[in-house]
Amino acid sequence: MPNEIKGLNEECGVFGVFGAPDAAQLTYYGLHTLQHRGQEGAGIVSTDGENLYQHRDRGLLAQVFADPAELKRLVGDSAIGHVRYGTSGHNSIANVQPFLFRFHDGDISLAHNGNLTNAVTLRRQLEDDGAVFQSDSDTEILIHLIRKHIREGFIPALKKSLNQVHGGFAFLLLQKDRLVAALDPNGIRPLCIGQLANGAYVVASETCALDIVNASFVRDVQPGELIVIDRDGLHIDHYTTDTRLAICSMEYIYFARPDSIIHGVTVHNARKKMGRLLAREHPVDADMVIGVPNSSLSAASGYAEESGLPYEMGLIKSQYVARTFIQPTQALREQGVHMKLSAVRGVVSGKRVAVVDDSIVRGTTSKQIVKMLRDAGAKEVHLLISSPPFRFPCFYGIDISTRSELMAAYYSVEEMRQQIGADSLNFLSVASLIKAISVPDAGDAPDGGLTVAYFTGKYPTPLYDYEAGYLKSLNEQELRAQRRQ
Amino acid sequence: MPNEIKGLNEECGVFGVFGAPDAAQLTYYGLHTLQHRGQEGAGIVSTDGENLYQHRDRGLLAQVFADPAELKRLVGDSAIGHVRYGTSGHNSIANVQPFLFRFHDGDISLAHNGNLTNAVTLRRQLEDDGAVFQSDSDTEILIHLIRKHIREGFIPALKKSLNQVHGGFAFLLLQKDRLVAALDPNGIRPLCIGQLANGAYVVASETCALDIVNASFVRDVQPGELIVIDRDGLHIDHYTTDTRLAICSMEYIYFARPDSIIHGVTVHNARKKMGRLLAREHPVDADMVIGVPNSSLSAASGYAEESGLPYEMGLIKSQYVARTFIQPTQALREQGVHMKLSAVRGVVSGKRVAVVDDSIVRGTTSKQIVKMLRDAGAKEVHLLISSPPFRFPCFYGIDISTRSELMAAYYSVEEMRQQIGADSLNFLSVASLIKAISVPDAGDAPDGGLTVAYFTGKYPTPLYDYEAGYLKSLNEQELRAQRRQ
Amino acid sequence: MPNEIKGLNEECGVFGVFGAPDAAQLTYYGLHTLQHRGQEGAGIVSTDGENLYQHRDRGLLAQVFADPAELKRLVGDSAIGHVRYGTSGHNSIANVQPFLFRFHDGDISLAHNGNLTNAVTLRRQLEDDGAVFQSDSDTEILIHLIRKHIREGFIPALKKSLNQVHGGFAFLLLQKDRLVAALDPNGIRPLCIGQLANGAYVVASETCALDIVNASFVRDVQPGELIVIDRDGLHIDHYTTDTRLAICSMEYIYFARPDSIIHGVTVHNARKKMGRLLAREHPVDADMVIGVPNSSLSAASGYAEESGLPYEMGLIKSQYVARTFIQPTQALREQGVHMKLSAVRGVVSGKRVAVVDDSIVRGTTSKQIVKMLRDAGAKEVHLLISSPPFRFPCFYGIDISTRSELMAAYYSVEEMRQQIGADSLNFLSVASLIKAISVPDAGDAPDGGLTVAYFTGKYPTPLYDYEAGYLKSLNEQELRAQRRQ
Amino acid sequence: MPNEIKGLNEECGVFGVFGAPDAAQLTYYGLHTLQHRGQEGAGIVSTDGENLYQHRDRGLLAQVFADPAELKRLVGDSAIGHVRYGTSGHNSIANVQPFLFRFHDGDISLAHNGNLTNAVTLRRQLEDDGAVFQSDSDTEILIHLIRKHIREGFIPALKKSLNQVHGGFAFLLLQKDRLVAALDPNGIRPLCIGQLANGAYVVASETCALDIVNASFVRDVQPGELIVIDRDGLHIDHYTTDTRLAICSMEYIYFARPDSIIHGVTVHNARKKMGRLLAREHPVDADMVIGVPNSSLSAASGYAEESGLPYEMGLIKSQYVARTFIQPTQALREQGVHMKLSAVRGVVSGKRVAVVDDSIVRGTTSKQIVKMLRDAGAKEVHLLISSPPFRFPCFYGIDISTRSELMAAYYSVEEMRQQIGADSLNFLSVASLIKAISVPDAGDAPDGGLTVAYFTGKYPTPLYDYEAGYLKSLNEQELRAQRRQ
Repeated sequence: MPNEIKGLNEECGVFGVFGAPDAAQLTYYGLHTLQHRGQEGAGIVSTDGENLYQHRDRGLLAQVFADPAELKRLVGDSAIGHVRYGTSGHNSIANVQPFLFRFHDGDISLAHNGNLTNAVTLRRQLEDDGAVFQSDSDTEILIHLIRKHIREGFIPALKKSLNQVHGGFAFLLLQKDRLVAALDPNGIRPLCIGQLANGAYVVASETCALDIVNASFVRDVQPGELIVIDRDGLHIDHYTTDTRLAICSMEYIYFARPDSIIHGVTVHNARKKMGRLLAREHPVDADMVIGVPNSSLSAASGYAEESGLPYEMGLIKSQYVARTFIQPTQALREQGVHMKLSAVRGVVSGKRVAVVDDSIVRGTTSKQIVKMLRDAGAKEVHLLISSPPFRFPCFYGIDISTRSELMAAYYSVEEMRQQIGADSLNFLSVASLIKAISVPDAGDAPDGGLTVAYFTGKYPTPLYDYEAGYLKSLNEQELRAQRRQ
Repeated sequence: MPNEIKGLNEECGVFGVFGAPDAAQLTYYGLHTLQHRGQEGAGIVSTDGENLYQHRDRGLLAQVFADPAELKRLVGDSAIGHVRYGTSGHNSIANVQPFLFRFHDGDISLAHNGNLTNAVTLRRQLEDDGAVFQSDSDTEILIHLIRKHIREGFIPALKKSLNQVHGGFAFLLLQKDRLVAALDPNGIRPLCIGQLANGAYVVASETCALDIVNASFVRDVQPGELIVIDRDGLHIDHYTTDTRLAICSMEYIYFARPDSIIHGVTVHNARKKMGRLLAREHPVDADMVIGVPNSSLSAASGYAEESGLPYEMGLIKSQYVARTFIQPTQALREQGVHMKLSAVRGVVSGKRVAVVDDSIVRGTTSKQIVKMLRDAGAKEVHLLISSPPFRFPCFYGIDISTRSELMAAYYSVEEMRQQIGADSLNFLSVASLIKAISVPDAGDAPDGGLTVAYFTGKYPTPLYDYEAGYLKSLNEQELRAQRRQ
Repeated sequence: MPNEIKGLNEECGVFGVFGAPDAAQLTYYGLHTLQHRGQEGAGIVSTDGENLYQHRDRGLLAQVFADPAELKRLVGDSAIGHVRYGTSGHNSIANVQPFLFRFHDGDISLAHNGNLTNAVTLRRQLEDDGAVFQSDSDTEILIHLIRKHIREGFIPALKKSLNQVHGGFAFLLLQKDRLVAALDPNGIRPLCIGQLANGAYVVASETCALDIVNASFVRDVQPGELIVIDRDGLHIDHYTTDTRLAICSMEYIYFARPDSIIHGVTVHNARKKMGRLLAREHPVDADMVIGVPNSSLSAASGYAEESGLPYEMGLIKSQYVARTFIQPTQALREQGVHMKLSAVRGVVSGKRVAVVDDSIVRGTTSKQIVKMLRDAGAKEVHLLISSPPFRFPCFYGIDISTRSELMAAYYSVEEMRQQIGADSLNFLSVASLIKAISVPDAGDAPDGGLTVAYFTGKYPTPLYDYEAGYLKSLNEQELRAQRRQ
Repeated sequence: MPNEIKGLNEECGVFGVFGAPDAAQLTYYGLHTLQHRGQEGAGIVSTDGENLYQHRDRGLLAQVFADPAELKRLVGDSAIGHVRYGTSGHNSIANVQPFLFRFHDGDISLAHNGNLTNAVTLRRQLEDDGAVFQSDSDTEILIHLIRKHIREGFIPALKKSLNQVHGGFAFLLLQKDRLVAALDPNGIRPLCIGQLANGAYVVASETCALDIVNASFVRDVQPGELIVIDRDGLHIDHYTTDTRLAICSMEYIYFARPDSIIHGVTVHNARKKMGRLLAREHPVDADMVIGVPNSSLSAASGYAEESGLPYEMGLIKSQYVARTFIQPTQALREQGVHMKLSAVRGVVSGKRVAVVDDSIVRGTTSKQIVKMLRDAGAKEVHLLISSPPFRFPCFYGIDISTRSELMAAYYSVEEMRQQIGADSLNFLSVASLIKAISVPDAGDAPDGGLTVAYFTGKYPTPLYDYEAGYLKSLNEQELRAQRRQ
């Protein structure tokens, strides 16, 4: 799979508010709860009804706004914000959102969570027609499309443009007099609407961001919808009716915050149920259950309850690992120096330990965890994964690496177990995953309204620019599979 | 109680290594696991057998050593390090340890965890004799005492000096040819010895710091001991035999890391048992048990297991709260904006919740937690504290505020419950606390070898400079108590 | 005059090199000598023949490249660089050059010194055709124009575009396989070509940048020329032959470095001659001549030599005034606290002082200098300006404020003298200015091949977007002039 | 000469004010004008009559106080400040002044310009008596001496202590109720008193610091004096009457600011006269005179006037060389890349140039200047030094390197000329230096009241700790001298 395909992949969180005093400050707190969705860049654009004001930079939110004066400069009662993780090499400040485009007929700011599957093609066409791009981001394509059609009016131009882009996307747009939100036809990325006590509306990637600003939940944005918030209130419109719900299952598995509620399902509860179903599918003979902090603790406690085994704290995670931390040399790492996780010797020593983790990507972390527990005296280490094996990449905005780096794409479960060094290794089935989440408003959408392509290879949309590379990677896999026989 | 008494209070962690390549780097990783013991300053002093090299500054370890060159400058095979929390106003860089004193007859570096109870008196005497202090820290007193007796030789001078200082202390001293560790006669602060694969010895406040550098545990330093490590190995000596074990119970309750083992007891296990005994003493009628992350999760899971109630994640803690974070204004705080903790609506809504927390100091956090849970829809909130009420200050190196700020010093449990707004409030008994910890080598020491003065007012040592203020505070309490009747 | 007209004004310096090892490092040193042309932003783009690499930020060059790793990342044997002063409000990082535009058919980087007079009109037209701008800078217009014509090939598209933009400009463009330089049809901004010992060509705003990289001077770029440097060497082409030399006289008066040679004239020598001619036009009865450091020292020494008066150091300038300096409060300023300049009491006390300065813009600095000298005991202060009165704004890339701020636009010389508080005030005549500079290759160009519109109002080009505002400002002046009668 | 002797050498500036609102801010501006005396550390200690407040750090003043809040914290109406240059290896923050010592009977702050010649001996004695030093600085010795005698009262203890320290020193001490200044018995370092409009007194190393705060000059502090400023006003006292004026001649030659007046002599005037006398002693046949900016411009203009040759700007100095500047590699340096100085080709090309510089230390800069001028086309380069050859080190607080690095200590003038590559090289005579300065209140003090030991080897005080090393260096010189014959 070509390198540049990976490069376009981003993880993000978005937040917007329209018509509330201290809009930038509210956005700051909203982004704070979304920081887990992206730690490499953050920004806010506000408007006072006249002008748009911007601050964005690389780094964590607290670093970007380390000088409180930067936040104070963002005056006005409306704002949008963005946190971003971009794969290395594409992390220049030019790619940090929200983007702010200045036009003689009115400025537009744009923030995006997701990934477009036809970005390369669209960009090439636009450039051949004279477009000048300022970033590597596929997000910017939307504004060029809008401007191509701007003589038809902004909203018509936006609707037309949203029908030209494909993939998974949640867009926020801010103009001096309105805030617009749009979601892809499959609702792959989460996006929800809340309301403050003063009546102002808030839009966010996850409900945890509504909670921190004390906004009451109004509704999830639905696939194909176009939400317009202006001085007259909230307007629910759509740019397409050809929709089918297929929410990204990884949001539930590990990406979203446990307190968020996506399409009616509390993430912690879904994870706990994944743990319970995992215990039913794969009971183990062990003295205790431990989780890998922090994202796997919910599933681990579910496994413990269902299995009746005691739930223990066998691994602890340092709260103090900073970006600037001096990493141990290879020599020290081999001596067992790890900065993030430690095994609790007094808990696991002499015990048969069932470790619950949420996923396996490259397998390197799993290998370290097993070794760490054995070094701390664990007699047996049984690894239980609360999701099915990741075998296919995500093209919709979560970076789980190129296909060639996915351990499960090339190895059987038994081969993985051997490489990781566990006494046993088991995964949750796709059916149980869907059952654990049980999206209430899935209707008759396939796979319970979820995207489970990472496990099955069946994507809910055409892959466009990625199609050729994807097929090529499959052939390679088959070749390898044959070589192994 | 006079303000300056509080000012002298410090929380700290120490680490030392003698005779290992990359000693400063090992110290850095050791301090990393001790960061929870102090986040406001950090430093390392190393020696190559000729000179002593120093770097220290305010801030977290990763900030102090943000420039890797600073760590590389600290050459040599031996080092000591320190992390520190100092109460505000005394947080100048002059107070950041390890201190490094340069003498024509050989440099000495000094790091200290603890608090001396006769520091004011000693300092006044020394100054009247011509001493010039460079810090506000009581740590510095030891070096002035040593130099007063230096003509008798270093070790005799040190022993004499250690008999002149009183309180709770764990000292590390580094000279170009040896590392010395000393513990107070009651062993109030923890200190342990480990050994690296190459035979080099390591000394640290907690065993988690031994684990990260892959050192095997050798023994806890015992009350009154003087440990000397030099090119000939480890020498166990003592400066007094008038000793009696009285380890600080707060180390087990909330201060130490859960994976540390202090005097044979794994902290996580002790906490879990506190939760179990709390469940026996105070069963509640609830739908679930939740813990306040992170320090109360062990006790909460113990409570859940003993009570048979499900253990849920009803509160989550942000991993991204930085020192530079812009705090919500009072107006926003009243609207419910809190940066650190969030209630998980989808878990607690409509439920009767039993919340386990490790302690109550001022009561403000408890009040916020209860409000947060009720805002998220909890029907009932029962607060369970896995330690007895804090009624008396610590004079031995843990900052639980001046007496006047301790809620339990002035209010009954029922009054506290009303102020906090919980449906019920219960504390663990002192007897159960002692039973939960059960220090194996306590022998016949009172209170099971623990300092529980924070709950009982019975301190294991005379209070010296603090005596008058302590008595005065008691009188005030009685006056208040009378006024309330 | 509308505010936005001022906003577009910028001062800048550019540097480029093609085909030399360590191109980015050479560019760094070249920009260092051009730092006086812009202190608010700096950047470098390099190419290794494959990719283009970029680093740019706000601040001085040394701040932008404070981390040496940033410079090392800019690999390759060709590079262009830029230093910039942008008027406040437009100093976002998006406006810092060189700009780097990425296209599927090849990246282009662009750096510009100058100002376009038809930028507003062009930008509006382009936006109406779908263009999305990333900056407020008129520089960006060129790339959009080029892309409009790109199907005709790059050089033809560039030539066509250069004929569409008007004003004063010196452009550098870098592609992976060539460096292009272009100068406006009047040669208003300076631009010169040099050659390194290895044969590689260098292009720079001033010859001082050739000197620091030890490049020998080849020639000045001439009006209307298009210089292409590629692997085959230097190609001199032109995009128009309708040219007439009109170099900006302010480059000689105060903007360029004294060691630079522009169109054959060493700036220091021109300034010294301005001082000599000033002495002939306006002899004064004084005890000494002093210059305002640093830009007026050449003229002052010329005045001293011609007049026979001693040349003294009566004012000194602090070398340590940093951007972060805490400025004196108004109260302190009134007490005479100034951070930049000090009068030398021991030199001027009791003396009649002739002060030579290069120009008067708002008059506030002149007023301070006169007060400072009188406070230091000067008996008389005679102010001599080595240029004519600034009465009209620059539309070609030097920020001498909007017309309404130019003191000489509204006041007579005698009125100015009174406001400034000098005993006498005299300016150099336009004729003497032209004579002092005496551009050798001016031929029969009007005003000796110089732009002297700042003094005469006669601009060498149409003013386009500025025309209306300019005329309006004239009417206002006349109205004011009448009111004063 | 042993290395540690060099290490103790420091250059500094001090400023103090007592009884003026915004004392710390005044001190900040005062230190700003003294920044040339030390660029590696700065600090201010203020008092409000109750407490002493401190901020100090490494770096330039503007860096140390980059956060304006730091300056605002320094409340009160009295303050002392310090700027410092410390030789490398001793530049830890512990050595940055003013020092602040906290005692139960009252805090004392201390700032020092100078160097003690018996520091090593005193420190050893004090340490043997139990003293604990916090810095490497000899400044700290004074406070230990004072505390030894403190039972006699502060002023008597201070006087006694001042008689125990030897060398060149100007001390400022701040207590909550007074400011004390003391000068060594030879007045080697400058120190002056001024008065603000409100009557408050100011003390500073140079009069330029009085000027910036608009203080009127009161008097120079005289050798052996002890100045006490308190609520009752200014008290002139002395601690010894065994005094003899011997001001450091290097202050006049290059160290002090040209606008300062030391013992009645304006520094610029003294330098100009050095240039005039140099022209009389060493006329050269040249086309022009140029100075090395900035410190040699005064002498150069004096030379030009006396010789009748034109004064030109043949070298210019960049204003933008920052501490963080990336230095050219050796390869680039050999190609002629220098960041600080540039030769003005259009001025010197084809000319016989007389270059005036203030001194030669190692000779490396002189060599570069000559090469630079020749590269720029100068036909002849005649180097004229406006001071005698530096042959002996300074032990009183100016760092002119260890003896072994002084070019003139080992080579004849002709040998120096050859190494430097000049067409001629000449120095001012000691007699002319003394005549050029002509200190009015020198009385019958030897050498016109100046220290000229750097040229003659005749020091005005015993050398104590330095004596042995000094003699040893002499022998080496003689040995070398013999080898050369």
